[in-house]
Amino acid sequence: MTHDGQQLTTRLDADGTLTLSLDDRTWDAPTGSTVLVRMEAAPINPSDLGLLFAAADVENAEYSQGRIVAQMPEKVTNAMAARHGKAMPAGNEGAGTVVAAGDDPAAQALMGKRVACVPGTAYGTYATCDAAMAMPLDDDITAEQAASSFVNPMTSLGFVETMKAEGAKGIIHAAAASNLGQMLLRICLSDGIPIINIVRSDEQAELLREIGATHVIDMTDDDFRAKLKAAIDETGIMLGFDPIGGGKMADTMLAAMEASASDGQPYNRYGSSEMKKVFIYGALDTGPTYLSRGYGFSWDVSGWLLFPFLQKAGQDVVARMRGRVMDELTSTFASHYSDRITLDDMLSRDAVLAYNRRATGRKFLVLPND
Amino acid sequence: MTHDGQQLTTRLDADGTLTLSLDDRTWDAPTGSTVLVRMEAAPINPSDLGLLFAAADVENAEYSQGRIVAQMPEKVTNAMAARHGKAMPAGNEGAGTVVAAGDDPAAQALMGKRVACVPGTAYGTYATCDAAMAMPLDDDITAEQAASSFVNPMTSLGFVETMKAEGAKGIIHAAAASNLGQMLLRICLSDGIPIINIVRSDEQAELLREIGATHVIDMTDDDFRAKLKAAIDETGIMLGFDPIGGGKMADTMLAAMEASASDGQPYNRYGSSEMKKVFIYGALDTGPTYLSRGYGFSWDVSGWLLFPFLQKAGQDVVARMRGRVMDELTSTFASHYSDRITLDDMLSRDAVLAYNRRATGRKFLVLPND
Repeated sequence: MTHDGQQLTTRLDADGTLTLSLDDRTWDAPTGSTVLVRMEAAPINPSDLGLLFAAADVENAEYSQGRIVAQMPEKVTNAMAARHGKAMPAGNEGAGTVVAAGDDPAAQALMGKRVACVPGTAYGTYATCDAAMAMPLDDDITAEQAASSFVNPMTSLGFVETMKAEGAKGIIHAAAASNLGQMLLRICLSDGIPIINIVRSDEQAELLREIGATHVIDMTDDDFRAKLKAAIDETGIMLGFDPIGGGKMADTMLAAMEASASDGQPYNRYGSSEMKKVFIYGALDTGPTYLSRGYGFSWDVSGWLLFPFLQKAGQDVVARMRGRVMDELTSTFASHYSDRITLDDMLSRDAVLAYNRRATGRKFLVLPND
Repeated sequence: MTHDGQQLTTRLDADGTLTLSLDDRTWDAPTGSTVLVRMEAAPINPSDLGLLFAAADVENAEYSQGRIVAQMPEKVTNAMAARHGKAMPAGNEGAGTVVAAGDDPAAQALMGKRVACVPGTAYGTYATCDAAMAMPLDDDITAEQAASSFVNPMTSLGFVETMKAEGAKGIIHAAAASNLGQMLLRICLSDGIPIINIVRSDEQAELLREIGATHVIDMTDDDFRAKLKAAIDETGIMLGFDPIGGGKMADTMLAAMEASASDGQPYNRYGSSEMKKVFIYGALDTGPTYLSRGYGFSWDVSGWLLFPFLQKAGQDVVARMRGRVMDELTSTFASHYSDRITLDDMLSRDAVLAYNRRATGRKFLVLPND
């Protein structure tokens, strides 16, 4: 038995034309350990936007029924040569109901169940995924509550696991008022882990203080760097996570850590021997990262990505993390959506201009077309 | 019994005045496990220049008998607040003869011996150091042959140890025609380790090919990046060491590694999962490091410094490294000096302008005033 519906794809051609398209599609019956999920809710995460639009000019794009045609800057187009000409589905995660399943018992066991899943193709009427990547939900959990149960929860728990593996004393987090940042803060509060939250407005600072944050620093303040150093003096944290990527956030963190580490120490031309580390896990600013290196030689800046982390962490750790997410889905790991749109809406100009802004405080959930 | 002589110091004042000064000094008799070495030869390494002059304007400095007064840029002066007002001795390493020793048997055993040492105060008539940091030399080794037996040899061996610890397949080395680069090349050739040497002139390329290098790439060539990728295709090396620091060398290495790792692979918006790593171990360019991050999230850039490395490596590894250096001091670890100057000469304008240029191919050795 087949299922008919629609699937959103994004295609970049070698000439820089980016085409988003919502097309009719037929899903075959799943085989083996795979299941077919009728999607009921899928969030738009920053990582989804990187695939959907990257740096395309959505402001001046052509919007028509079920189709967007935009222009990608030449440099970005060239850097993405491997995706030229391929219509790629998108949508990392979501929740829905299993309407068909392969013969494998693991797949059959999910038949008719509501699940959270990570298909990578969630912006569609249906999505196929392996039973191992679909988590059955308790009856009192809605699809909306479970839609964001993978990327942000596992990432924020992954930060804490990484911090422990590094032997660090806590976490400095930039763009900390995001959904992910709020989750990370709740985990740290509940686990007694010191966290310094960097935000960029009074409203964001207030939001985090209401959750219970003690160290909240506004990066738009004139004395931002001095405040950051003071918070590091107090906590001893030499580990940062930065989703901005471009510009000087990682550099600012490292400089503040070094200022704190070398305070009162005799001069050392190589900087302090205290190891200072920043993980870049996003690209809210797609420009280059600047490192002044005014902090000696005991520093490290590296990329951080969920899937390689999970692979390295191993099955037991991942199972423990998944279990905690499911247990605390409506508390620690609750997501808040500012906007709910349909699959059709995803291609409207107003919606694109809003959800592609990646503004902290707005988070979109995609619902099926009726 | 005391010893009289002269000591070179460098002092930076809060107003940006940098003063190098060669002054009379009396050394007390050493106690405990320390020895007093009459210095016979000391190299000028890039790491010494960072302390002696940093970014001071030596071109427009005042040169007088035994004294240089130069101006440091304000930003650098402020960044070095911890050294303001302190006259600091310099000279990481050298060789000489032990003329006095503390009561400790380890110190007494070195009495009258010619030793290689790492006192950090080598630009002086005498230097005090712990017996553990002074290696007795065979009779047929001259002070000049042993003067550079620590910094460059241990650093190049440290790169190989680091490479092995990272599980990498070899080393990409920038500014590879340096004394250090030549040592590293000889180690790699003798140990069968693949190495890609990045140089910036035909002469440098020829020099390394004569030693036996197979992969030598000139960064001033138009097709530098393509050649670098081709060499990585051939060797699979995903680990670089960069003494330049500022600018785009680390970025260029990472981009070439990624181009090689993702060649022929399906498009992945997060980049390849192949871990790519560059260690920055110098600051030939003191400007900021630019990272375009056009290579996904599986990358790492970090500082590398000899002393923290040795501390982490542990005594056994360090003893093995030291043993090899002593065994191969006149072959693998031979240093070549283009210029020999006296302690007095170190303060002459002509000499400063030459040795502070940090030009590959020139290396200065400091000898005692007669």
